[in-house]
Amino acid sequence: MSELKDFIYSIPTTVYFGKDQMGNIGSEVASHGKKVLIVYGGGSVKKIGLFDKVVAELDKAGIAYVEFGGVEPNPRIDTVRRAVEVCKKEGIDVIMPIGGGSTIDAAKLIAAGAKVDFDPWLFVSEYRPISEALPIVVVLTVAATGSEMDAIGVISNPETQDKLAFASPAVRPKAAFLDPTNTFTVSKFQTASGAADIFSHVCEDYFNMEPGLYMLDCFMEGLMKTVIKYGPIALAEPDNYEARANLMWAASWAINGFTKGGNNNTWCCHAIEHELSAIYDVTHGLGLAIVTPRWMEYSLTEENASKFASFGVNVFGIDASLPEMEIAKKAIEATSDFFFNKLGLQSHLKDIGIDETNLRVMAEKSCRYGGLPGIKLLLADDVEQILKNCL
Amino acid sequence: MSELKDFIYSIPTTVYFGKDQMGNIGSEVASHGKKVLIVYGGGSVKKIGLFDKVVAELDKAGIAYVEFGGVEPNPRIDTVRRAVEVCKKEGIDVIMPIGGGSTIDAAKLIAAGAKVDFDPWLFVSEYRPISEALPIVVVLTVAATGSEMDAIGVISNPETQDKLAFASPAVRPKAAFLDPTNTFTVSKFQTASGAADIFSHVCEDYFNMEPGLYMLDCFMEGLMKTVIKYGPIALAEPDNYEARANLMWAASWAINGFTKGGNNNTWCCHAIEHELSAIYDVTHGLGLAIVTPRWMEYSLTEENASKFASFGVNVFGIDASLPEMEIAKKAIEATSDFFFNKLGLQSHLKDIGIDETNLRVMAEKSCRYGGLPGIKLLLADDVEQILKNCL
Repeated sequence: MSELKDFIYSIPTTVYFGKDQMGNIGSEVASHGKKVLIVYGGGSVKKIGLFDKVVAELDKAGIAYVEFGGVEPNPRIDTVRRAVEVCKKEGIDVIMPIGGGSTIDAAKLIAAGAKVDFDPWLFVSEYRPISEALPIVVVLTVAATGSEMDAIGVISNPETQDKLAFASPAVRPKAAFLDPTNTFTVSKFQTASGAADIFSHVCEDYFNMEPGLYMLDCFMEGLMKTVIKYGPIALAEPDNYEARANLMWAASWAINGFTKGGNNNTWCCHAIEHELSAIYDVTHGLGLAIVTPRWMEYSLTEENASKFASFGVNVFGIDASLPEMEIAKKAIEATSDFFFNKLGLQSHLKDIGIDETNLRVMAEKSCRYGGLPGIKLLLADDVEQILKNCL
Repeated sequence: MSELKDFIYSIPTTVYFGKDQMGNIGSEVASHGKKVLIVYGGGSVKKIGLFDKVVAELDKAGIAYVEFGGVEPNPRIDTVRRAVEVCKKEGIDVIMPIGGGSTIDAAKLIAAGAKVDFDPWLFVSEYRPISEALPIVVVLTVAATGSEMDAIGVISNPETQDKLAFASPAVRPKAAFLDPTNTFTVSKFQTASGAADIFSHVCEDYFNMEPGLYMLDCFMEGLMKTVIKYGPIALAEPDNYEARANLMWAASWAINGFTKGGNNNTWCCHAIEHELSAIYDVTHGLGLAIVTPRWMEYSLTEENASKFASFGVNVFGIDASLPEMEIAKKAIEATSDFFFNKLGLQSHLKDIGIDETNLRVMAEKSCRYGGLPGIKLLLADDVEQILKNCL
């Protein structure tokens, strides 16, 4: 056992949380610039009237804007490239994504790309450091990825079948508007996938045998309990404010960096799921839901059963007097039950049209930087077996 | 029942957490200014060698400094006035408290006072708004008040027997250095008082019948479990890094504003304890330990028993199948047991030399702005009875 790691905590994003915060958009954006690129996806933000409300606030504050719609789920580098051109041509000085994780992730790479003369894909493929970016102000519409408060993004390149991450404090949003009512119209499927995504983010930091801060373990258990409690309520009652609010704030805190303090970097399931999305364009949260319980089953050993048992007792309320390994197995069953029964997500890769064809390729790509350092180290053979177990 | 409240979250303090962060002091301070006022208390920071280590880092970075020692526990306005004079005379541009809550609170009012031409007591007595302050970089030595990451301070005026709070985003520290090893030499009494202070901060936001975010209730329960687990360990093994680290980070998060999101303002026990400290110079955490269980006993009703029961089940692990009121009472007993047996703090006012003489005066002063809006509204008569129950 090594010692508790040092860490630097810095999450300066200002969050305007609640139903009646739109009046702060003008002053917040004006503190960063004068001309905004509004980035959005398929247009649902126009359908629900949110786009018009935001624009009215910008108008009131005398802030000019340019629209950039059509960011796809699993956002693509070509879209980012086109948006960067618009920024340069129009003299944009603030990026405002209105949407969920895909739109925000694209906005982050746009914000970085607007500051350089080279192809923004090089930030991802060559790890060129992102030292500056245009300021980002988010209007969030989906509780899921936590991109609204973190310093990370993920971008896809269909040409190379890559889906890769980039990270820099420069792309952490300066501010985010989190109004739970803006998630009332999120579909059942996207609500369930979002809940699975939040749960998975917490798992990635939680399942770890290195010494960590107990207070953060407690916090992570609380986040998971929150998702378990409110995911099904949001599915049954899409306009339940309490449920949407808890899911929204939990999503931000599952991945903004707080839970990482002192913990080892693990993040196995995301590495595996990104390969699924890169080839099959799977919804991220759904992919995670399918992979996570199989990763747990495969990773459980006598040595790490105590962590799975803590998870079972503190998150699912399993009887602490049972033998450790029994609690651990029950906890993994409870996780499957949550994803596939309570949230109603599809449980197998074959259910979403994926067969064994590319399993080996995906397994090898997921380990392109070496093994995945989870609660049990995974090499390509291990990942391939986990993916087979997902079929 | 009203609805969940909107809130704005903004905690931009950068925290350098761990054993090996001193190397970042120079660059952090240099990003804010060139001439530092080092503020400290009775000199223990010199005894443990911390002062010299900090100064060595400032020297390395070419940053000048002026010393200002002698800040007392329950810091006094006269001390702040003298330090403000030093700032103005010396052209200080950064305030660096090395110490615990008293030193940091004094530093906050010094930082604000250095920016104005009037007596800094007017920020407190007349609520003059603090619109700007010198940047503050903290080196923390006690896990207790959370002043290192919050936007609040408390200052005493012995002439008027007042101990009053002030608050402004301008006085929230820009950065804080949290090295758990710097708390190894904190005495048993101060360690226990600090643990009680942390626990009480959480109680003040937790005990509330207004709708709040469940995820924050879970987080607060986790913070209280952390204090219950590690307070006694830190007493038994003063150099237990895991215990000191958990207490230190929990202290910051108990009051930095995160737990407040969407919750009503309550903060009864602090209002009562400040009157004790103002007249009797009681150690803040000790005063809170004596008041808190009596405040709980006095506030418990059929209407709010469910909250006390959640506290009992989730924090102390009391059997959830018992009747609600029974769990609630057991939870209050467990709180007393924690403060007075596990932490070994004195349990009655008479143990610390306080008799009934000033109870009425303190009760009336605590309600000077109207009643105290806790889980049960308290008027001066109620506070007097609670104080009597503390005798």
